[in-house]
Amino acid sequence: MSALTSKSYHPGVLPIKFEPGRIMLVDQRKLPHELCYFDATEHDDMVFAIRDMVVRGAPSIGVAAAFGLALDAARLSSLNLDKPDFLTAFAQATAELNETRPTAVNLRWALQRISALVTEAVDHSYPGDIANLAYNEAEKIFQEHLDANLAISEFGAQLVGDGARISTHCNAGGLAACGYGTALGVIRAAHFAGKNISVYVDETRPRNQGSKLTMWELHQDGIPSTLICDSMSGHLMMHGKIDMVITGADRIARNGDSANKIGTYNLAVLAHHHKIPFYIAAPLSTFDSELFDGKNIPIEERSSSEVVTIDGVATTVPGAKAYNPGFDVTPAELIAGIITEVGVLRPDYKNSISSALKIEN
Amino acid sequence: MSALTSKSYHPGVLPIKFEPGRIMLVDQRKLPHELCYFDATEHDDMVFAIRDMVVRGAPSIGVAAAFGLALDAARLSSLNLDKPDFLTAFAQATAELNETRPTAVNLRWALQRISALVTEAVDHSYPGDIANLAYNEAEKIFQEHLDANLAISEFGAQLVGDGARISTHCNAGGLAACGYGTALGVIRAAHFAGKNISVYVDETRPRNQGSKLTMWELHQDGIPSTLICDSMSGHLMMHGKIDMVITGADRIARNGDSANKIGTYNLAVLAHHHKIPFYIAAPLSTFDSELFDGKNIPIEERSSSEVVTIDGVATTVPGAKAYNPGFDVTPAELIAGIITEVGVLRPDYKNSISSALKIEN
Repeated sequence: MSALTSKSYHPGVLPIKFEPGRIMLVDQRKLPHELCYFDATEHDDMVFAIRDMVVRGAPSIGVAAAFGLALDAARLSSLNLDKPDFLTAFAQATAELNETRPTAVNLRWALQRISALVTEAVDHSYPGDIANLAYNEAEKIFQEHLDANLAISEFGAQLVGDGARISTHCNAGGLAACGYGTALGVIRAAHFAGKNISVYVDETRPRNQGSKLTMWELHQDGIPSTLICDSMSGHLMMHGKIDMVITGADRIARNGDSANKIGTYNLAVLAHHHKIPFYIAAPLSTFDSELFDGKNIPIEERSSSEVVTIDGVATTVPGAKAYNPGFDVTPAELIAGIITEVGVLRPDYKNSISSALKIEN
Repeated sequence: MSALTSKSYHPGVLPIKFEPGRIMLVDQRKLPHELCYFDATEHDDMVFAIRDMVVRGAPSIGVAAAFGLALDAARLSSLNLDKPDFLTAFAQATAELNETRPTAVNLRWALQRISALVTEAVDHSYPGDIANLAYNEAEKIFQEHLDANLAISEFGAQLVGDGARISTHCNAGGLAACGYGTALGVIRAAHFAGKNISVYVDETRPRNQGSKLTMWELHQDGIPSTLICDSMSGHLMMHGKIDMVITGADRIARNGDSANKIGTYNLAVLAHHHKIPFYIAAPLSTFDSELFDGKNIPIEERSSSEVVTIDGVATTVPGAKAYNPGFDVTPAELIAGIITEVGVLRPDYKNSISSALKIEN
């Protein structure tokens, strides 16, 4: 338990509430205009919710998927299937959830945890116990993320100087990280520790998670914030107005290469050019121990409709072609440190990441 | 007269039509959804049109202001004022036009030309002749810009390789440059010369001149184009999908430092990081011989409403603070060449610019 929990805990925003058979997700598509919940009571609801970004942010996607698979475990175990039929149907449900979003590795990681437990238990457990096992494991993943958020925030806050002007991209807050936040958790912790910080928030086109979600979270907490367009960061850096950059990540390879929301790489190159430290904040569940570098991180290509419209309003000529990669990969050499729940990892990342993940280098 | 004019002239888009007493401006706020004209028949109309960006783009602003001042010269010379009253009123009208937009130097340059001519003529000319003088000079400035556009386009097209994939920001087309275009003129000329080019167009938040105007011009001419968000250029460059970058400029200092639409500097730093040539295309009227470097170029700060809304729709929390610089300055050392009507200027820019402007180094 981190000191932050006992001393200065602030709940942030929890994007997921749950009871057996009903997972309530903050509908992140509707913020900041409306705070309402999307109820997922069956498999297809959760597949839709993740794919359509009702819930988004790598750790929150992982937790939501874990609860979604628990919903499936409960439903399937109520059908009195024999073991092969149960396992086939359960594997199918797992695969469908796994295919909703390709880039965030936390999704796969969380599904594997639930899946391994249920598959192992199916031999020797009552159906009702299987459902409980799955819900309890999903809840445990949730709690672990919240604890990780707090530890990340506390480690990260030590890197933030008094009066620091921090740039961030997209939303790596409580909404994304299923708890206190990763990048935004660091910012929260620094703020509540009394450092006189302020934040420049990239609007983060095309879905505007910065203007919609990060600005909302910062306003909830009264943290001084200024919204900018994604194109303005270089101008601010040139004029000495940004002291550090912190973002989240969706998947981190063993050499430190980090996938995050499209535009993060632009920001990292600009920070490098201006000798401003660029940090990633992410839990260990975001690391992919199967990838040695970022080249093979799958980059989700989303619909061009997100680029040719803004909140549904057409901004360009009819028939315009657009390109819409959802993520980019920031090479390790541009990253000053990766803030995790076990401390701040530094280059050489091959060593520090292997050590944190307790795997062979 | 450039070879382009006689051999492969294509008119592009002329944002200004005129007859004495009536200046018709393509209302660039309404494209691409609607092509309609804004009639300026008196001083206040033109002040509004420039300030509210009915007409925008440094060269087009210069030409529009010249015609606006000609409207004033005509009106004042019809009032039978004595010379001191005429000159006072005329200076006042000039100052009001000059204050509409601070960054584009072409505005000041064009106003000075009309103003000098009228002030000199007021002693010895009939009122009707003064109005004609002013209109003729405005028309001459217009024609000079069109000729400069064509010469720039032809010089620039020689830099474009067959099959080149070109990135551009904002709109430096016929709409902006009052003719064939500067950056977009180069692209047009390369396309009509049969080079198999394609263009990645930054949407250019907050006012989306890329998605609205540049995409419209490229579609008019059937030039292959792909719209991207401003945050995506690094990802494309990393994956080898951009061969060169060309943008316009709003003011260029004597050392080559170039102000252009906010986001141009981000693009220049990214191009530099990826060793991709970054070019500016601009007429000599965009150079400010009074500024030795870019530090003192005034940067227009526009209303935060442009950032917190998109086409009038709120994208963030009520009361959000936003920052909205309209321009940034790209240092000369990031610029591979400046394409003008007298050729492609190369470093050392202090020498090449002085030589092009025919001023002392």
